[in-house]
Amino acid sequence: MQKSISGFSKLSKAEKINWLIANHFGNKKHAKTVLESYWNEDKKLQQLHDEFIENTISNFYMPFGVAPNFLINEKLYSLPMTIEESSVVAAASNAAKFWLNRGGFKTNVISTEKIGHVHFMFKGEKNALVNCFNALKPKLLRATATLTKNMEKRGGGILDFQLNDCTSKIPHYYQLEVTFETVDAMGANFINSCLEQIAVTFETLSKEASNLNGILPEVVMSILSNYVPNCVVRAEVSCAVDDLTLEGHFTGSEFAKKFIQAVRIAEVEPFRAVTHNKGIMNGVDALVIATGNDFRAVEAGVHAYAAKSGQYTSLSHATLKNNIFRFWLDLPLALGTVGGLTALHPMVKFALELLGKPSAKDLMQIVAVAGLAQNFAALRSLTTTGIQKGHMKMHLLNILNQLQVNTSEKEQLIIHFKTKSVSQHAVAEALKNLRA
Amino acid sequence: MQKSISGFSKLSKAEKINWLIANHFGNKKHAKTVLESYWNEDKKLQQLHDEFIENTISNFYMPFGVAPNFLINEKLYSLPMTIEESSVVAAASNAAKFWLNRGGFKTNVISTEKIGHVHFMFKGEKNALVNCFNALKPKLLRATATLTKNMEKRGGGILDFQLNDCTSKIPHYYQLEVTFETVDAMGANFINSCLEQIAVTFETLSKEASNLNGILPEVVMSILSNYVPNCVVRAEVSCAVDDLTLEGHFTGSEFAKKFIQAVRIAEVEPFRAVTHNKGIMNGVDALVIATGNDFRAVEAGVHAYAAKSGQYTSLSHATLKNNIFRFWLDLPLALGTVGGLTALHPMVKFALELLGKPSAKDLMQIVAVAGLAQNFAALRSLTTTGIQKGHMKMHLLNILNQLQVNTSEKEQLIIHFKTKSVSQHAVAEALKNLRA
Repeated sequence: MQKSISGFSKLSKAEKINWLIANHFGNKKHAKTVLESYWNEDKKLQQLHDEFIENTISNFYMPFGVAPNFLINEKLYSLPMTIEESSVVAAASNAAKFWLNRGGFKTNVISTEKIGHVHFMFKGEKNALVNCFNALKPKLLRATATLTKNMEKRGGGILDFQLNDCTSKIPHYYQLEVTFETVDAMGANFINSCLEQIAVTFETLSKEASNLNGILPEVVMSILSNYVPNCVVRAEVSCAVDDLTLEGHFTGSEFAKKFIQAVRIAEVEPFRAVTHNKGIMNGVDALVIATGNDFRAVEAGVHAYAAKSGQYTSLSHATLKNNIFRFWLDLPLALGTVGGLTALHPMVKFALELLGKPSAKDLMQIVAVAGLAQNFAALRSLTTTGIQKGHMKMHLLNILNQLQVNTSEKEQLIIHFKTKSVSQHAVAEALKNLRA
Repeated sequence: MQKSISGFSKLSKAEKINWLIANHFGNKKHAKTVLESYWNEDKKLQQLHDEFIENTISNFYMPFGVAPNFLINEKLYSLPMTIEESSVVAAASNAAKFWLNRGGFKTNVISTEKIGHVHFMFKGEKNALVNCFNALKPKLLRATATLTKNMEKRGGGILDFQLNDCTSKIPHYYQLEVTFETVDAMGANFINSCLEQIAVTFETLSKEASNLNGILPEVVMSILSNYVPNCVVRAEVSCAVDDLTLEGHFTGSEFAKKFIQAVRIAEVEPFRAVTHNKGIMNGVDALVIATGNDFRAVEAGVHAYAAKSGQYTSLSHATLKNNIFRFWLDLPLALGTVGGLTALHPMVKFALELLGKPSAKDLMQIVAVAGLAQNFAALRSLTTTGIQKGHMKMHLLNILNQLQVNTSEKEQLIIHFKTKSVSQHAVAEALKNLRA
């Protein structure tokens, strides 16, 4: 029977590990060896990583790969990608290469507004609240002055500030809605600090407000929203339909037809849309993680955006008009290139330097391109060879490693499977034959 | 001006890095030093990680932490969490501790069905297609026999197989819809392989089918869905309302009232729901990554599920009835504890062993608990102290590291901020005063 423990977070790293090994691994030392085999030799560097979160006992390696040849608005990039799925970097590289000679990717940032709310209950007359809010508004904004000072120097700050009546949703429910420009910061800490300050000041000042007749607003919570439909970037590719020809397989128009059918299906069928968008996020998240951003925030905002019409649908779209094939997506992306882990995690610094030290706006565009490229590669595979061929080809090395082949067997089996289709079963069989 | 490159994936790791340094870092060597400082000394272990994806040049460290004291269905767990956000493990630990003495978490798996489709176009008569499908169905299933053999031995396989008429969405659009039980595998490769085999056999056999009059179905694509509304787990906590009392702050019923208000707001307001669910996913993804599962798949399925009513809404719910506070969520989770990286990544093996080598069903329950715990912790902070206090307290070490304080300064400032509120600005000021 495992035991509970008090004060675990106050133990040293070694004590934590010893407790875990005693309680969950029957004191077997192999588990400790695994943890230690991932510690960095450089103790100062390891301490930095240990201090990112609480109760750190080791480092989880995510593969850090690179996809070169991304031509974005006439400039060439190599994209840093942190991702565990075997085929994602290969697919990105293929899509980049394909579009390199067809004009590359074009992007533009449509909007950059972030948003947050003070959610509160108020049981008095709406008119009294409106009058009180209008009277207090300048003071509420002034209360954030020390918080917004630095952000304003960088060109950001509070953009707008309004009272929302949400009583049709829940009786007595209102919001103070604040919109922000956070420039190169993702802005979560900044926004939450501003909102909490506004909430405290609002509660304090409303006590003195004569027009409320002593009926006071009760703050429920103050928090930014990760839903950012006004912080959107577009990425697209286009070319003459004949340039899509895959020699020996499809004419350009056959390919375009099938590709557009596949996108159309994702537009109308949620079961397909979810996986379609998941493929987009393979590319997006790989960049988001590599650049030290918060992928849960991005995922939540993107999928809610995909559902905004009332039916979950494709984030990307494709058309064929006047013999021009066009493929694009719009993504809501709240990203930062300063703050958070960006200046702390050495691999994040590397990733940002690899990208030429982008602004947050630049990064929005690069990340959207990674999503579009991934989607293009997946749809191209799905509508031509099927998804498994390329995926399992990339997964072959993992299967061989799992079967613990030696170097010579690995080489022979890689050659063997150049012309055969890969499956766990087929690889096991081929290895058996090789060893026989 | 950066250059494009041919055959990048065929270069050695050293050659890839040299090209990157020459093209993107002006040949400055510090970038190469950073990459190398993250390589594992054990060359064989490093090669394993290099081969997970294409073009790997280094390892991206994600902190691997542990949250103990999770009582789930009367059994104690320490949860492995891979997450970069500073407050997530601390919040999980706090929630676990809170519920440890209040009955712990209860869970149950509601369903475990996975789903995939062969999407195709057919321009003939619907009746002819229906007759053809019914006639071919046994043969199509038999065509997957070699693929399903092992899965059936483990208790899984194809559950159901039907033809869907989707012509109201797109003219001529139909689906072969197949549902699967994949037991302890997430099942993506298995499902996709089955679907691709069904598609090929369907195209081949329909050429011989007399009832189609030569009008042939045209397969667009064959692919699993990451939308799994029939693969759902529930996690919940409950206690007498008086047991929620926070001494010196709130009575149990005051706390319950505010907490339930906050959940209710997330149920009706999409701007709040997105961030509310993002908090749930902080816990979910930390477990999903640590156990070698695909977080993009989980994210896409979960958020689409949150939008299934036509309005994006909260995944969790709370009630107070007969003085019993109850808080729960349902999550669609397609997870695996075999296949993929589970047997390959040593830290994933460690994580699964820490959890007692769970089945996929066990893991669904543990992951759902991590989500619910995270949501509880976030809502508790939001509705009491505000989210920033705890978050910035956990972020303090990151700020101190960024300001490059020495060990003595670090110790003094940690003590200083035990009673002060943390912000980037406040820490910089305190450091300035300390050094003056």
